[in-house]
Amino acid sequence: MTAYLPSYVQGQWWTPADGTAGTEVRDASTGEVITRVSTEGLDLAGALEYARTTGHDSLAALTFHQRAVLLKQFALALTERKAELYALSARTGATKTDSWVDIDGGIGVLFSYSGKGRRELPNSRVHVDGPVEPLSKDGSFLGRHVYTTLPGVAVQINAFNFPVWGSLEKFAPAFLAGMPTVVKPATPTGYLAEAMVRILTESGLLPEGSLQLVSGSVPTLFDNLRLGDLVGFTGSASTAESLRRHPSVQTGGVRFTAETDSINASVLGTDAVSGTPEFDAYVRQLVTEMTTKAGQKCTAIRRAIVPAASADAVIDAVRARIADKTVLGDPRAEGVTMGPLASTAQRDEVLRQVRALEDAGGELVVGSTDAPTVRLADGTEGHAADGAFVSPVLLRFADADADAVHDVEAFGPVSSLLTYETTAEAAALVARGGGSLVTSIATHDPAQAVELATRIAPFNGRMLLLDRDDARSSTGHGSPLPNLVHGGPGRAGGGEELGGIRAVLHHMQRTAVQGSPEMLTALTGVWHAGAAAHDDGRHPFRKSLSELRIGDQIASASRAVTLDDIETFAHFTGDTFYAHMNEEAAAANPFFPGRVAHGYLLVSWAAGLFVDPEPGPVLANYGLENLRFLTPVSPGDDIRVELTAKQITPRETDEYGEVRWDAVIRNQDDEVVATYDVLTLVSKEPTREAVSA
Amino acid sequence: MTAYLPSYVQGQWWTPADGTAGTEVRDASTGEVITRVSTEGLDLAGALEYARTTGHDSLAALTFHQRAVLLKQFALALTERKAELYALSARTGATKTDSWVDIDGGIGVLFSYSGKGRRELPNSRVHVDGPVEPLSKDGSFLGRHVYTTLPGVAVQINAFNFPVWGSLEKFAPAFLAGMPTVVKPATPTGYLAEAMVRILTESGLLPEGSLQLVSGSVPTLFDNLRLGDLVGFTGSASTAESLRRHPSVQTGGVRFTAETDSINASVLGTDAVSGTPEFDAYVRQLVTEMTTKAGQKCTAIRRAIVPAASADAVIDAVRARIADKTVLGDPRAEGVTMGPLASTAQRDEVLRQVRALEDAGGELVVGSTDAPTVRLADGTEGHAADGAFVSPVLLRFADADADAVHDVEAFGPVSSLLTYETTAEAAALVARGGGSLVTSIATHDPAQAVELATRIAPFNGRMLLLDRDDARSSTGHGSPLPNLVHGGPGRAGGGEELGGIRAVLHHMQRTAVQGSPEMLTALTGVWHAGAAAHDDGRHPFRKSLSELRIGDQIASASRAVTLDDIETFAHFTGDTFYAHMNEEAAAANPFFPGRVAHGYLLVSWAAGLFVDPEPGPVLANYGLENLRFLTPVSPGDDIRVELTAKQITPRETDEYGEVRWDAVIRNQDDEVVATYDVLTLVSKEPTREAVSA
Repeated sequence: MTAYLPSYVQGQWWTPADGTAGTEVRDASTGEVITRVSTEGLDLAGALEYARTTGHDSLAALTFHQRAVLLKQFALALTERKAELYALSARTGATKTDSWVDIDGGIGVLFSYSGKGRRELPNSRVHVDGPVEPLSKDGSFLGRHVYTTLPGVAVQINAFNFPVWGSLEKFAPAFLAGMPTVVKPATPTGYLAEAMVRILTESGLLPEGSLQLVSGSVPTLFDNLRLGDLVGFTGSASTAESLRRHPSVQTGGVRFTAETDSINASVLGTDAVSGTPEFDAYVRQLVTEMTTKAGQKCTAIRRAIVPAASADAVIDAVRARIADKTVLGDPRAEGVTMGPLASTAQRDEVLRQVRALEDAGGELVVGSTDAPTVRLADGTEGHAADGAFVSPVLLRFADADADAVHDVEAFGPVSSLLTYETTAEAAALVARGGGSLVTSIATHDPAQAVELATRIAPFNGRMLLLDRDDARSSTGHGSPLPNLVHGGPGRAGGGEELGGIRAVLHHMQRTAVQGSPEMLTALTGVWHAGAAAHDDGRHPFRKSLSELRIGDQIASASRAVTLDDIETFAHFTGDTFYAHMNEEAAAANPFFPGRVAHGYLLVSWAAGLFVDPEPGPVLANYGLENLRFLTPVSPGDDIRVELTAKQITPRETDEYGEVRWDAVIRNQDDEVVATYDVLTLVSKEPTREAVSA
Repeated sequence: MTAYLPSYVQGQWWTPADGTAGTEVRDASTGEVITRVSTEGLDLAGALEYARTTGHDSLAALTFHQRAVLLKQFALALTERKAELYALSARTGATKTDSWVDIDGGIGVLFSYSGKGRRELPNSRVHVDGPVEPLSKDGSFLGRHVYTTLPGVAVQINAFNFPVWGSLEKFAPAFLAGMPTVVKPATPTGYLAEAMVRILTESGLLPEGSLQLVSGSVPTLFDNLRLGDLVGFTGSASTAESLRRHPSVQTGGVRFTAETDSINASVLGTDAVSGTPEFDAYVRQLVTEMTTKAGQKCTAIRRAIVPAASADAVIDAVRARIADKTVLGDPRAEGVTMGPLASTAQRDEVLRQVRALEDAGGELVVGSTDAPTVRLADGTEGHAADGAFVSPVLLRFADADADAVHDVEAFGPVSSLLTYETTAEAAALVARGGGSLVTSIATHDPAQAVELATRIAPFNGRMLLLDRDDARSSTGHGSPLPNLVHGGPGRAGGGEELGGIRAVLHHMQRTAVQGSPEMLTALTGVWHAGAAAHDDGRHPFRKSLSELRIGDQIASASRAVTLDDIETFAHFTGDTFYAHMNEEAAAANPFFPGRVAHGYLLVSWAAGLFVDPEPGPVLANYGLENLRFLTPVSPGDDIRVELTAKQITPRETDEYGEVRWDAVIRNQDDEVVATYDVLTLVSKEPTREAVSA
């Protein structure tokens, strides 16, 4: 590695001038100097403006789906070279399992957003939110909500613990939303994030300006931000607080979210006594959270809240499991299951916080704060004065109400045990954390789970309900997932870095739009009833995606419904529900005038009325949505259907795409009988048959 | 009215001790003292805690639908006594039209949320957000997002301009969400809010502690707030800024949103030249926004952005329309169309801001800042030294880039005119406002509308597209609607007081929940696939809502599909699509193995398989959702269906409710052929027939 860790700004790699002091970064296990970090002389304002201009332009040229396809390609590029990342990751103190969470976990986020982006977003640049809001009786004035990309830069300030995953969990939704990223990794492990960014730049896949990397501190950052920019911060609550106070955030309209190291809890249910599967799952999970990544996780369990009667059993089981399973040492040594903290500074800070917890009444019941004997890189056991090693530690608080246990975070392999008597007490203890990223509950009693979960939900971004049914398949208390909200209220910072499409929308502005159906159709790319519809004499089922236009319509002929039709359908399908078969009983039903046609008869006939039977670009009807039966159809009524192309979604990686059709069935009096959306797959190009037809 | 304006706290009316100084409140037209306002001696902390305890308990006892029904009853109670409110409203300077916006508009918000709450929320206390997220291959571990009520109090600090509507727009979503409200109206018009609250308390309908009123200032408010509380502020950007800086907001996790007096714009398109319907609509709307409520609206048009070529025509037309339509005076006098500002202090402030705009280069092209001649209460014309009258004023800025025009708000009948040449320029001018509540665009050119709207959307909470098609039905630039987001980014404050169910969810916490299907079913009240299903031998269609349980299931017999069935169905329905009729062509289709059954045949047969035909509690199938065809069915295949009660929604005001059924069609190999939800209406109590059956 070079003497200085490079940054990647304005399309180029940049390093500080020789002789710049910089901050030394050391190997977590050995203390060896790896690199130095500095931003002295870096044009941060230029980088931000480059993102807002070049970065925005190159992303705006792509649709949601095109960006989603790129995310998958990024994932493949990283997968191909992940051995390089694993090698560097070991230097941060990460075991192989820890590195898997960081590196493969980060790559998994890209895959996940790539899939979600294509399944849940349109293949365009504007996302429509919520239903049409009718604003006038005559249908000439409608309301709709749209999401558009924020016009600025997404600045991502990340924590040291997961340099790859932590970067990618924010980059993926920003990229998908069309916002260029400037990522600022934490100094102690920034070299791993740098390697990840380097692989992406070398892949040649990154749209110009869509990702920049600043290695080192950014003291002038907030002075250079403005409305339309966004900051996603992960780190300590105190740093979040000072950043949030900047005028750019307070009055400048810069979106600021933080995900901070909250005092998460894990509650053992009163039914989950020693010997139950829930007890075992609880202890297993607690030890995992204490030792994975040496407890350096914002989501780790800091407070184990257990029934007073189970406290001793939990402590004994935790002690036994740690003794049995945990081998502390240099991650490069064989058999090591728990590595050092990220730096000796972190080690000293964690030991300071443990002392603070002891001073506040915490009794050390598992582990020790003495310098541990560890397995060194060469496989021998010994002390490592320059390594950042701390043993797993469990404290017990006799007074569950002590402030410190709900407030002091030792960001390492440290948890505290508290006891409760009633579910209400347990809930109150969880809430004392002042807002958490996650709380888990181990119980097999649904009533207890519901009571506790309902009380604590408003204080948590995520809750995990652990029992015998999911203990094996559970992804674990400490694992945020890209499809679930990650972030929590209050002390947890209020962030929303993950959460599937929710996190994408966080990078966009929701705006209510009022206008005529024509204008809303033009703006959203979705046909709105009342906008112009076209019938050019060619059946829309004969048009490929390249020919079909929003608003293309077929208005069918009418067809009369007879009592005989209803009986035929009833006997063919077996659906002899009385409303179709028995005049007297049907008339007694509050919704029917007498015998009526089956709803499924109506939609089946409608298909017969609008379908164009010969082979052509329409390949299949793959579904139907939002069907509502609004007016009953009696024998003697006529029905007809209007089918209008409502939304066209070509697939990026297939020769076809989705077309959503607006279907309206009306009767002879022009009353609306039923409305629904028909979902079809349609070829992009005319097929031979379609051309000849 | 009494000497002191009362507050309503902890279930009682409260007034300051005699001799308390207080702030005098005066009639806007005459300057006569109406009442005095003070909170000296009021137990604010007690009121907040009363909300968090008594208020929460009484609201938590109700479901969303029960709260929604109450909102409608509140609306009816206010409607019955609205004459009292109109009489007081005139004293605030409001004309009859202004009062209609405030009073009937506010009542309309209650009706709107009452309807939306029942249509769009479940009849329970937890709201489910987004789809099921599968988290394990075997289906034993799922993710879901839920919204639960914030555990604290919703404090609503309102502006003086719409004392009724401004209170109700925030109260309605808070109430629906289950959060108790403490409302603090603005002093100059607080007596009208007090009258509204009095009517509600006297109706006897308010759940205990669900609404409290603090008349007067609340300097210690934020010191008494904590995580789980929420503040909705409407007023000046500068006050919002100082409130937001409080530690309760910065680090305490108190949700704070503000809706501030933004510098809204209205853009005239280049096609909308004089003589077009859009030009006329634009001028009409501009004058309306200047004069309604004497321009005291956060949403009023402060910047008229017009093509340079149309500037003179716009000014002339505005001048002519004001001369023609506007009669300034005491709202109690006949024929008056524009009243005074709310107070002489407001008048003096507005005149100060007009001078600031003139100093920055604004030329006064319509109206005057001289004390106007007005129509007095007795119908005579004259000066009213103690009345807060200001004439409508339009300024013209030669330099569209002048800072003041994008920054200085004169909160009265004051707009400024700016000119542009290109659409990009117009968009840049809109953005200069630093984030607005609303921008309107008058054009009949969809391309221009889309370009402009897409550029400015991220800077606006709402956009109105005005043209000949909606000019008549438009609700107007300045009218927030309860079903559309109200609030905007940046200078507009970031609030979200309105927006339909979005505003309700703003009063709740979204939490990701992971667990087994059983636990998620217990927590959400919605059946999740994989949770226990019950077949007690009684067909679920024979159970009324009072008997039916989530998870009640019928598993049907199998039925074989023959080629003959497919042909019969094709000829009966007319759906002779080649995939059903032509073996060779069907096999050439990428999705089908050969001829397949119609999707509609499958759902029709499924109904025949699960239906119980005799009269009973199931009254009707009113719709179907999320139908997906997953595996084609070929001649010779068998199908069967499982129907499981998924969600039960009894209606509060009917003898029936909705039941959503989970339907899964499988083939003989247990492959899933189709999934969908069937929507039915079911009686609450067993019918006679059902009992005898």
